Parts: sequence; structure tokens; C-alpha cells
Amino acid sequence: MSLVVHRRNLDFLLYETLGFGTVLSAPRFAGYDRAAVDAVLDTVQAIAENEFLPCAADLDAHEPHFTEGRVQVDARVRRALGACAEAGLFSAGFDHELGGLGMPATVTMLINGILAAANIGIANYQLLTVAGANMLASFGTDEQKLLFLRPMMEGRWFGTMCLSEPQAGSSLSDIRTRAEPLEGRLHRITGTKMWISGGDHDLTENIVHMVLARRPDGPPGVKGLSLFIVPKYRVGADGTPGEFNNIALAGLNHKMGQRGTTNCLLNFGEGGDCLGYLLGEPHQGLACMFHMMNEARIGVGANSAMSAQAGYLYSLDYARTRPQGRPLRNKDATTPQVPIIEHADVRRMLLAQKVAVEGALALSCYCTMLVDRMATATDETERRDLHLLLELLTPMAKSWPAEHCLEANKLAIQVLGGYGYTRDYPVERHYRDNRLNAIHEGAYGIHGLDLLGRKVRMEGGWAMDLLVLEIGQTQDAAEAQGGFGDEIDALHGALAGLGRATRAVLACKDPEHALANATLYLDGFGQIVIAWLWLKQAVAASRALESGTGAGETDFHQGKIAACRYFFRYELPRALPLLVLVERLDSTCLDVTPAQFLGD
Amino acid sequence: MSLVVHRRNLDFLLYETLGFGTVLSAPRFAGYDRAAVDAVLDTVQAIAENEFLPCAADLDAHEPHFTEGRVQVDARVRRALGACAEAGLFSAGFDHELGGLGMPATVTMLINGILAAANIGIANYQLLTVAGANMLASFGTDEQKLLFLRPMMEGRWFGTMCLSEPQAGSSLSDIRTRAEPLEGRLHRITGTKMWISGGDHDLTENIVHMVLARRPDGPPGVKGLSLFIVPKYRVGADGTPGEFNNIALAGLNHKMGQRGTTNCLLNFGEGGDCLGYLLGEPHQGLACMFHMMNEARIGVGANSAMSAQAGYLYSLDYARTRPQGRPLRNKDATTPQVPIIEHADVRRMLLAQKVAVEGALALSCYCTMLVDRMATATDETERRDLHLLLELLTPMAKSWPAEHCLEANKLAIQVLGGYGYTRDYPVERHYRDNRLNAIHEGAYGIHGLDLLGRKVRMEGGWAMDLLVLEIGQTQDAAEAQGGFGDEIDALHGALAGLGRATRAVLACKDPEHALANATLYLDGFGQIVIAWLWLKQAVAASRALESGTGAGETDFHQGKIAACRYFFRYELPRALPLLVLVERLDSTCLDVTPAQFLGD
Repeated sequence: MSLVVHRRNLDFLLYETLGFGTVLSAPRFAGYDRAAVDAVLDTVQAIAENEFLPCAADLDAHEPHFTEGRVQVDARVRRALGACAEAGLFSAGFDHELGGLGMPATVTMLINGILAAANIGIANYQLLTVAGANMLASFGTDEQKLLFLRPMMEGRWFGTMCLSEPQAGSSLSDIRTRAEPLEGRLHRITGTKMWISGGDHDLTENIVHMVLARRPDGPPGVKGLSLFIVPKYRVGADGTPGEFNNIALAGLNHKMGQRGTTNCLLNFGEGGDCLGYLLGEPHQGLACMFHMMNEARIGVGANSAMSAQAGYLYSLDYARTRPQGRPLRNKDATTPQVPIIEHADVRRMLLAQKVAVEGALALSCYCTMLVDRMATATDETERRDLHLLLELLTPMAKSWPAEHCLEANKLAIQVLGGYGYTRDYPVERHYRDNRLNAIHEGAYGIHGLDLLGRKVRMEGGWAMDLLVLEIGQTQDAAEAQGGFGDEIDALHGALAGLGRATRAVLACKDPEHALANATLYLDGFGQIVIAWLWLKQAVAASRALESGTGAGETDFHQGKIAACRYFFRYELPRALPLLVLVERLDSTCLDVTPAQFLGD
Repeated sequence: MSLVVHRRNLDFLLYETLGFGTVLSAPRFAGYDRAAVDAVLDTVQAIAENEFLPCAADLDAHEPHFTEGRVQVDARVRRALGACAEAGLFSAGFDHELGGLGMPATVTMLINGILAAANIGIANYQLLTVAGANMLASFGTDEQKLLFLRPMMEGRWFGTMCLSEPQAGSSLSDIRTRAEPLEGRLHRITGTKMWISGGDHDLTENIVHMVLARRPDGPPGVKGLSLFIVPKYRVGADGTPGEFNNIALAGLNHKMGQRGTTNCLLNFGEGGDCLGYLLGEPHQGLACMFHMMNEARIGVGANSAMSAQAGYLYSLDYARTRPQGRPLRNKDATTPQVPIIEHADVRRMLLAQKVAVEGALALSCYCTMLVDRMATATDETERRDLHLLLELLTPMAKSWPAEHCLEANKLAIQVLGGYGYTRDYPVERHYRDNRLNAIHEGAYGIHGLDLLGRKVRMEGGWAMDLLVLEIGQTQDAAEAQGGFGDEIDALHGALAGLGRATRAVLACKDPEHALANATLYLDGFGQIVIAWLWLKQAVAASRALESGTGAGETDFHQGKIAACRYFFRYELPRALPLLVLVERLDSTCLDVTPAQFLGD
């Protein structure tokens, strides 16, 4: 078995549960049928297993370091990313007319996820480059595309996202980096950016930073931010990197995980002029940055799920082979020990991982398929509805895995016991890596505010109605299939609780009070969405078993149904009390004063 | 404020909530009044802050390493432990007649906890030495005490616990290390021991291993295990360490956290005879080892809580001073940012930490006071009851913090955002350190089996009855105090659910089925115990506010009441669905087959 990806599960999600075949049949994706997608994923899996996985522990143990005036990155990182470039993975999702391979967003998400499962420390360089290239593709002038987008799509130059500053993390309003207009799109950039992943390294001949900065004519707050292309080395008209652009590495951050990726404090314009090129319109920087934000956030969630999947596969393999203890009915120490998967509590820990990993991946796939369906929709109303659903689900797609797949990683360690706590086994590394996902791309609490403060209110709550309709279709299908009465009832009850909570918040005029429990709402809502997607999977599995299309795969499909039962029985009920607190606008957290935590 | 320990909280728990003053008034503790205990804790806090804390990050980053044939440990570790020895901390809990200081178990638990909060990597050497010395004090011959106990109590030699082997972790039945009788108590030891904390180092002139091994005349299983004193260097009749005793360091384990402590694979009897001395009776090894087990397990829980307390204090301090964002009512970016403690979700994360830390510490203190009350009890029935309560509560005292205080550490990281994810701040280190506590001293699931399979059945369930009586007294006090109607009702409801779950399990004859959800029972039961202890704290705080004894400390006592409300509203309701699963003997985890996890 692969320890990087469970392909059978991906196939089940894409083709048996979520209808990816229909997406592929659209003219836009004419070059891709299921066999072509399989071939792409085969290639990616091979790169992940051969180039990414073998050095993962070693890169974690030996971080990039600053020597002789530059950040030195292990040669295996360059080789692994070279293999990605050679396979065209940097350009996979871009339109054909830009020189890309025109793959569906669902496929590029899985490409990233498989690489991340093997070694997120390397994969990050690719993810960030593609994210930056996406903005260039959407907002760049022809010249900007020629100079910057092309080498990024070829994987010759890497990219970064420069939003945060030491004093401005969650609050982008407070960004201070300045951009002084020179001529045309040219600006002089000065300021300090923090937490810049891939911010400096010696992997490529240039690094293209996408920098949020404020022009003197910009209003205060986020409405005064513009976006700039700021290369490490200035680029001549022929596309050749030349003079150093005065971006000083002020420090490397030493992280708990994802240690293969450099993470930097950068000073722009220290020691000389730093030149940047305006991307898109002035003062529209955040809008440009957020243009691809849903996809980026879904990607973070997917990578979190894939990281947990790696832990799940490893701990499952371990549980099947590690003898320890005996059944509770047998205390005879002279009989052989049994594999620990025979113990109920170990199965519980494996089921908990399975529902987290495969539930989260179902959500990731569902969301990227919304992106793909938007791209292929021929009807404007349909496209709008798909967009609304995507907007609504994105906070969950990003945050649910960050919480619950981290928990899965924790359980993978537990299955291995003492061994799992050592760096000789990969499970603790995945746990450390995954801890970042509730922090970056919007901290956990921010997504709660986004969901309850903005998303559920969009267009009079139409997005919520759309989701309830979608869920209703699954309930109907489950009803028709039979055998899911408990799950249908539980989902009904949970949706009713969600509705009550939502209405209570919408009726409250004071935002502090209304949103005091937004994080709980995010988590409770997420549990309901995952429950729905588990029911959807179980119905698909039940159909396969009944129709005989799942012949020879009885265990696989029965496992899906078992996992669905587990989620509804063990996980969903724990979420409902959260929604009760939201509904009654509980103010416990507002009422406590700062002085009461410790006392006088 | 101290970043190591919140002394005001300890005082509140000991003297205002749990009645430690009464314990101190017993003749056995004649040397200790509150002022004397304060002085001890002052000394310990000073050692922790001056010797343990400053090097914590550095020792974490630079593990002990094997060079020139020996394990080299940083000199600061020796100095810190030297300060402990000088202050008499190694002998703190031992009887005066042994040369100890005769301190109550509650005080020694707090000594260890304060040191662990500052730097668990160093504190472990002390904890293990004291644990080994405790067994010598209980079961050693006079000669053994003279030769081994004395230098350990003086902190000149350190100790270890050698239970696990590569093939025998949770299943001690399967220990293979052999002990061949030579003459008298002398045996020849051969075998391999795994996960030995402090197993080798150059800190002291000798290391005393307490080794579980099997004599040829021992029956299979745990009933054939005996306990041996096995020094690294053989000890002459004059107590001088001499010849190497052939304990080979076969490997250092590289852990995720607690990295300041060496953790070793040891081969006994490799390259020559390894001599060990039988401690206690043959085949009574496990009983000897478990003699102090309740205290050791409570200590693990307390250290977990103290580690989380360190994260709580750090993140609270950060939240009070870090400006970021504005109130939701004010979007004006030209106004100053507010400290993040002004945001409801940050307060939620701080309250969640507070209830975990102070709830767990209340349980630790309650349990060690049972130990102290047993030691001072004059009535045999009373002592038996105290012992039963201690037996019942120990699985929770060990496991509840391991789960919920780890969660607290996770939230401390979240409060710090990106900063929290770096090794420049201590919160991620505490998180990594704390992850071990659900694994060692009995893995999490083992304690569930212990609780539901053994403890609740003791003496016809009398321990449970005793606990319910204790809780009832708190409910009565809360009733009398007034203002806690919701909490009293919630606790009633939760206890009823616990009772139903317990009865259902006791009525089930098949142990596999009955214990399939033992871990959920452990967690649900733990939540109820912590809820009870929060109500107890809130009643004490309410009394202090009412009586005026808390004058000038209104915030402190109101904070206790606020935290109690938070626990009952936000935490307790999530536990109850767990007990429903136990009650209905849910077999989801038993029914899933190993093949169903991945499929064919």
C-alpha cells in the first residue's frame, strides 16, 4: 500500500460520490477523461513517493540555514521541484492560451495534496508559486505575464505572498508597507513583511513577491491597499534577472513544523531602492489577492486532510502489524499477542481518523468541483448559485480539516504509542506540520466571523437555502436507498438547530454580541456539512453494494458505510451543544473581564 | 507576573477550596504550616525561574548527544539539579526517619509541577529519581536503603524506571528480560529495555535502574515479574561505585518533546555480567512497581496541567499586550488597534485554557490530598474509603489533563498566531512536551479499561457511591450559597447519565462489548469530575466575595465564578453524548473489520 495517498478513496469520491465524470465531460476539459486524470495522478504519486517522501524526515531535522550571505536549501528540494516542473505541474491549472495544461481545479488540488502528504516542506514552494502566478494570470498586463508569469509557470522562478507584517497579521487594515509611484506601473517599495514562506532561498534564479502595500493616495484601511509584483532581482526587458532589488532577509523564522520551507522576515528597500510593479488597479490589492482566495483556502484544507491521511495510512499499517496485548476475553499470557487493530479502542482511533480524512477530502473535492462547475457553467444563474455555495462552504473547507485532521494526526501518534512520539516515525511530523493550518490563510476565528458575519447573510441567506436544498437531495437519495433512517433524522435535527442558531444571530443587532460565538458556529456548521458528505458517501457505497458494481470491493464499500455510522454516532452529537450556545447568544466570553483571568 | 506558576491560584485551591489547612494540622505534618509550605514553594519557584526556565528553549533545540562513548548532557542541567539537591527537594517527601523532610504528597506534587512547568526536560530526572527512591523506601532492605536510597535522596545518583521493552509496552505480560538467581538477592540480568528516560547520562556518578524482569521460576504473564535494583556501576560495600555493570546504551530515542531528557534503549548484560538485586519478594515486581503508581500517575497529570498553565500564562500576557484589530462595532482603521484580549474569541480561548488548567490542578490537588489524608487517617474505615476514592479518581487525574491540557496548549499557540508556531516562543514547546502525557505511565485507552473494567467495580461500586456523596456535598453547599441552580441541575443530569452508563456496562457479561467504549467513559466521567471541582471552586469564591474575606480580590474570585459558568456551558454538554454511547453499548468500533478501513 502507498503511504502517501489512498487512490481508491479519491476515485470513490470523484466518480462514485461527487459526479466528477460530468465535470470532465464539459467541452472546457475536452483533453481530460478519467484515464487522463489517472495518468496525471500516477505521475504525481510517483514524484511524491520517489522525490518528496524519502527526504521528508531529513529536511525536517535540518532546516534551511543562512550561510555566506544566503539561505541554503538542501539540493534534494531543488531536484524534487525540478521533477514537478518537468512534469508540467506548475502550469497544470492554467488556461491553454497562457501555455498551461488547462486541468480542472479539482485535479490541481489533488496534485498539491499528494505532494503535501509526502513532504509539505517542499510542496509549499510549488503552491505559493502557483498562487502568485494565478494572480498574474488574472490581473497582469501582457508584459507582466511575459516577464513574470511565464518563468513561474515553467517552475524556473518561484513566488511568494507578502501580506503580513510584524504588527499586522489578522488585521490587514494596518499594513504599513509603502509604495511610492514613480512612472507608469513602477513604484518604490519600502516596508517590512513577516511570515513570508519561500521568502528567500537559492533554489531559483529569481523570486517573485506579490506584495500588499499602500500608496500615498490610498485611503486608510484595506481599501487603500494595492498589489505589487516585486522581484528579488530586477528583470530586464529580455526577461533576464539582473540587479539585486534590495529585499533584505532580516530573519529566518524557526517553526514547529513545515520546516523544509524557509519562512522569512523581509525588509523591502533596505540599502537601496526596491522597485515594484502595480498589478491590477490601484487600491484594489485586496480584491486581487482575494480573487483566488477561495481556491487557496480550500487548498489549505485539502493539504491538512492529506497530511492527516498520511498519518492515517501509517498508523493503520502499524496497527495491522504490531502485536500487543490480547483480547479482553483472553488473559492467557502464553497465547500469542494479537495485532493492535483487534482492540476496540484502536479501531475507534482509526475510525476517527478515517472520518476526518475522508470527510475532509470529500469537502475539498466538492468545493473544487464547484470551482470547475463555475468554469463550465453556461447559465449565469447557475454560475451565481455555484459561486454562492462556494463562498459559504469555503470557511468550513479551510477550517474543519485544520481542527479535525490535526486531531486525526494526534490519534495516529497515539496508535503508535511511544514510537509515534519519536522522530523516527513520520506521524509526529505530520502533527507538527498540520498545526499551522489553523493559523495561516486566515486564523481559525477569522473564518468564523467570515461565515457568520458575512457569508450566511449574502443575498438574503440564499446560499444557506441552496445548501439546504443540496443536503435535502442527499436525504431523499438516502430515503430511497433505505437503511439510513437514523442518519436522515439526525441530519434533520442538526439542520434545525443550525437554522435556529442562524436566525437568532441575524436577529441580533449588536455585532459583538451576535458574533461572540462565531467560532462555535463555524465548528458546528462544519460538522453538519461533513455529516452530509458522509451520508452522501454511504448512499453511494450502498448503491454500489446493491447494484453489484462494487463486486470484489465489498470491504471498501462497507467500510464507507461503517465510517458514516461512526460519524453520525460518535462525532455529530458532540457538535450540537455548540449551536445551542450560538442560538441563545451566550455572552459568557464577552462578560468575563481581562482582569478576571488572573485576578488583581 | 510569573510565567511559571500562578501562586494565587494554588493558594485558592489548597486553602480556600480543598481544606489543605486541615491536612497540615495533623501531627504527622507538625513541621509544616502554611507559612512553611509557602517558603518551600518560594524556593522552588526561584529555582524554576532562575535555573530551569532560562535554558528551556536551548535544551529543547540541542538534545543530549552521544559523543566519545558517552551521553553528554548540557552543564546547565547538572547545575539546575544541583540546586534542587541543595534545597533538599529530592528528599522532600520521605519520612524523617529515612532522612527525608516529611512533606505532604500535595507539596511534593507541586514542587515537581513547578519545576516541570519551567522545564520538564530537566525536571524528569528528579521525578524519576524520587519515584525509584520511593520503591526503595517501601520495599528495600536496610542494606539496599543504605547503598541506594541514600545517594538518591541526596540527589547524588539518579534513578530510572525500566518497564517497557521493544515488544512489550502496554502489555507488560510480555516482558522478556530475564533474571537468573545467583545468591541471596543477587541476580544476573539479561534483556533489552525501551523508552528509558534518564537511562544514560553523565550527570551523576551512578544511575540506579529499577528493572522488571522474569525469573526462571516465575509463571507466565505479569504474575511472574520481579523487581530488581540494577546500578549502572556496581556498588561496593562502602557505597562507592566501581566496575561497569554492563548496561549498554543501544540507542537514544529522538522525541517530539521533552527533549532535554535522554530517552534510551538499554541492553542489560551485553558484553558481560549485569548484576541486579531483588527488591521485595520474587514475582511481586508489578505490585511493588504499582505501589506508588497512583502518585506517579497523579504527578503526570499535574505536570500536564502545569505545562498547560505555563502556556496559559504566556498567552494571557501576550493577549493583554498585543494590539491587533478593532472591536466589531468599529471598523475605522484610523483608530488605534486594541489588545487582542478585547476580542470575544480570544477570551474564549483563554477561558478554555483557564478551565483546563485550574480544573486539572484542582483534581491533582484533591487526589494528592487523599494520599495525605490516608497518611494521617486514624480510622481504618476512613482510610479505606480514601483509598477507594483515590483508586477511582486516579485514571481521570492522569488522563483528563493529558487530553484537555494538551488542548489548552494548542489554544495558547492559537492566541499567539504565527508567533506561537515558532520556536522563539515557548508555547509550541509546551504543546510538544505535553503530547507525551497521554502515552507514558499507561496509554490513554489503558486508563479507560482500568476505570470501567476494574475501578468502578471495586467493592460493589462503593468507590462510585463515595464520589457521588462527595459531589452531593458540593451540590448542597452550592444550593445553600445560592446562584448556582443551573450548575446543580446540570451536574445532577450528568451524574444520572453516568449512572445509567455504568449500570449498562456492569450488566453486560461480554467484556469486549462492555468495554468497547471505555475511553469515552473515561473522558465523560472526567468531565463530570472537573465540573464538580469547578462548582466547588465557584462556591468557595462566592463565599469569599460575600463574606468580605476576598476584599481587594474581587476580580480573582469573580474570575473563578466566570470560569465555572464557562465550563458548565461550553464544556460539560459536549461530554454527555459520550456517555449515551457507553450506555447503549454501541458496537460501531467492534463491528468494523480491519479490511474495511481501506478495502480489498
